[in-house]
Amino acid sequence: MTTNMTIYDISEKAGVSIATVSRVLNGSSNVSEKTKKKVMDIINRYEYTPNAFARGLGLNTMKTIGIMCADSSDLYLAKAVYYIEQLLRSNGYDSLLCCTGYDLNTKEQSMELLISKKVDSIVLVGSNFIYEKEEDNRYICDAASVVPVMLLNAALEAPNVYSIVSDDYTSMYKATAQMIASGRKEILYFYNSFSYSGKRKLAGYRAAMEEAGIFQNGLRMQFYKGSHEDIHAMAKQLTEASQCGLSFDGVIAADDNLALGAVKYALQNGLKIPEDLSIIGYNNSLLATCCEPELTSIDNRLETLCQHLITTLMGILNGEEMPKKTVFSGEIIQRGTTLLQ
Amino acid sequence: MTTNMTIYDISEKAGVSIATVSRVLNGSSNVSEKTKKKVMDIINRYEYTPNAFARGLGLNTMKTIGIMCADSSDLYLAKAVYYIEQLLRSNGYDSLLCCTGYDLNTKEQSMELLISKKVDSIVLVGSNFIYEKEEDNRYICDAASVVPVMLLNAALEAPNVYSIVSDDYTSMYKATAQMIASGRKEILYFYNSFSYSGKRKLAGYRAAMEEAGIFQNGLRMQFYKGSHEDIHAMAKQLTEASQCGLSFDGVIAADDNLALGAVKYALQNGLKIPEDLSIIGYNNSLLATCCEPELTSIDNRLETLCQHLITTLMGILNGEEMPKKTVFSGEIIQRGTTLLQ
Repeated sequence: MTTNMTIYDISEKAGVSIATVSRVLNGSSNVSEKTKKKVMDIINRYEYTPNAFARGLGLNTMKTIGIMCADSSDLYLAKAVYYIEQLLRSNGYDSLLCCTGYDLNTKEQSMELLISKKVDSIVLVGSNFIYEKEEDNRYICDAASVVPVMLLNAALEAPNVYSIVSDDYTSMYKATAQMIASGRKEILYFYNSFSYSGKRKLAGYRAAMEEAGIFQNGLRMQFYKGSHEDIHAMAKQLTEASQCGLSFDGVIAADDNLALGAVKYALQNGLKIPEDLSIIGYNNSLLATCCEPELTSIDNRLETLCQHLITTLMGILNGEEMPKKTVFSGEIIQRGTTLLQ
Repeated sequence: MTTNMTIYDISEKAGVSIATVSRVLNGSSNVSEKTKKKVMDIINRYEYTPNAFARGLGLNTMKTIGIMCADSSDLYLAKAVYYIEQLLRSNGYDSLLCCTGYDLNTKEQSMELLISKKVDSIVLVGSNFIYEKEEDNRYICDAASVVPVMLLNAALEAPNVYSIVSDDYTSMYKATAQMIASGRKEILYFYNSFSYSGKRKLAGYRAAMEEAGIFQNGLRMQFYKGSHEDIHAMAKQLTEASQCGLSFDGVIAADDNLALGAVKYALQNGLKIPEDLSIIGYNNSLLATCCEPELTSIDNRLETLCQHLITTLMGILNGEEMPKKTVFSGEIIQRGTTLLQ
């Protein structure tokens, strides 16, 4: 029995999650004595050793990678999943995707599900999988004790976790600085997320504004809570803010959807783009070429990030030493919604 | 051993695919004698009966549904996947998604992968999984011999296959008839797919044109081969067609992306929308509100289709008798790219 026993079998026989088994094996204190005993009884009865498990994993690879993304209807995430699946396939790997939503509980469940399907690694697409509180990221560390975990555009320092990141801070800093240099002073930041990436973007905007010394009246910021598809609701929020006395001659948006909301706002209020209102979006998505004038947008080189993630993953699965964190820089794609300098 | 043996175990022990085992069990002639013997040997050795398998499936449900979609970066498909995952979760089911691309081989492989992961059913999202040649659809019938297969917006008559369809023919017929009624005669059909749904749409356009008797000069049609994100390439194709003497005062597009290409074409060539050029898109996606004027588009009630698919699936999994095919009708959402009548 020894050689065929895996962490999955122990989890099943003990009636506890894989994460719990892994916590017991790693001597974590976050497990009740009762559960610990249940797991150890199974381990002792079947003479399981972590070594046998590791060996089993290596030999019986299913050549399948688990992917998790919060929301497949988000253009950016869907595109990332598309690239990753294509690249995995060309490397001879199948993939299984779970769309988890934004709830931590469901993310944990999906992680369990993928690990129970014996994937060779798990790729987390997008920065909303990382939480501020360390304990909320435990599900990632638990998974990483079983298989390598790859983060796309998020970072977490933990064993067996690899981060591939776009430098959103610098990209947003540069975009804001460029708009300031073009003569704009009342630049509104329009955003809808407090994720890891969301916070980095906001920090880049703040830094550029502070550095230019146009911070004294407080920053102009609008947080949008509605559906990421409801362009009209975004435009409405800006119109209302403007009617309440908020003046702005530029909009830096945290994604292209929000930037389109600003374009719609300008058209509805008779503002000329870019003369009366400059707009910069983020992601350089399909949406950037849909409107008129077309959207200046930050390209964070998603395809490059995905390629690098897969190269790193293939290295890890081949037993090579790979970098734990890699950072790429983005690029501003100039189109009609900004003034030429 | 008898009760625990499943079709998966037989496939593994015989070293053949699940589809092959199922073909042997169903007495299909499409299996070599050698393979047939190999499978039957395993079956006899372990005293497997299909009944035991069926019983096993019912009792050991993993509460997991497999989903296949060709391309997660397609707005329409991604949205459908999103709805289906949400609905499954609220019914207590996990889901595993494979993005297969458009290649038949990969689709077959993904199907095998999902079935080997012991899903309770497989949902095929979009009509590109159905082929003209009967033999190319065998992978669906093979899967359906193991688990119920649900088709979203495609139809196939086969045991254990359930089809939930939007009436694309009638929707496109109505859209074309409406444009004719508004005084347009030179109506161009702009399309990019020969899928089941693609053909139904085209047939609807043709029928309306023929019925109105404006068929005599031949139909105006443009097939677009490029990336579904390259709005500029679409506009360029229309500009070139127009320069080569193709005149048109209306465009019926097979999806919103193509319709945006027509909007871009009009703007680039100084045509007024809708006065000089009327445009109707399809899917009523996010894109419809991104451009100016906004896009009149056909809403094929994707969310309703998905809800009905899940209701049907839950019925089947509870052992209820459910309809094999259900058809919903679409609706034209009027916006700025068409004339009011």
